[in-house]
Amino acid sequence: MAQPRIRILIGDIVALGPGKARLLEAIGETGSITGAAQAMDMSYRRAWLLVAAMNNDFIAPLVERTAGGRGGGGSGLTDLGREALTRYRRIEAVAARAAADEMADFQALLKADDMPSR
Amino acid sequence: MAQPRIRILIGDIVALGPGKARLLEAIGETGSITGAAQAMDMSYRRAWLLVAAMNNDFIAPLVERTAGGRGGGGSGLTDLGREALTRYRRIEAVAARAAADEMADFQALLKADDMPSR
Repeated sequence: MAQPRIRILIGDIVALGPGKARLLEAIGETGSITGAAQAMDMSYRRAWLLVAAMNNDFIAPLVERTAGGRGGGGSGLTDLGREALTRYRRIEAVAARAAADEMADFQALLKADDMPSR
Repeated sequence: MAQPRIRILIGDIVALGPGKARLLEAIGETGSITGAAQAMDMSYRRAWLLVAAMNNDFIAPLVERTAGGRGGGGSGLTDLGREALTRYRRIEAVAARAAADEMADFQALLKADDMPSR
């Protein structure tokens, strides 16, 4: 069943939404922007731009370069990056729980038998 | 300062989100897809594609052609279109209310002094 997902917008721009949140998680898991981009089937350029935007929109960077071994450094989440991600997931969970009954009603209006169209 | 806002996406491909909801409202207000597209500063083609997607994703169309006068017909919301829109707005309101405290905490992590970057 379709779950509601949350975007947090500042003005009309998405400060943190599903895509950026997944990107932060993937950077934490893979230890690099390159690895995260590959894991998400996203271009390195797009991943880098999303990281740059997040690093600019928050009070301090969410992603930082890490000192590397032989292969050079990677990237990881800062404490603020982990906090922003945790809080975002919490907002999603709280909102989804609160709206669960309404979502079930809404779901009944959607076709069940095929994928949404583009 | 810009307040962060919550927007709800339903489905992985967005069955209904802020843009589609505004488009439905604009069709209801202007009585045509052309008028709605103009009001939203959106191309007719894009508006038409969004309507076609919604009409396909729900159990019945949300938008239908209306019999017109001399100038030909326009478009309006079906009963299902009005119901989907009402339910969507209700989900948004319930989610935003439930997550208000969490959103205030999250806001403290965002820069207050300038516009978000792209």
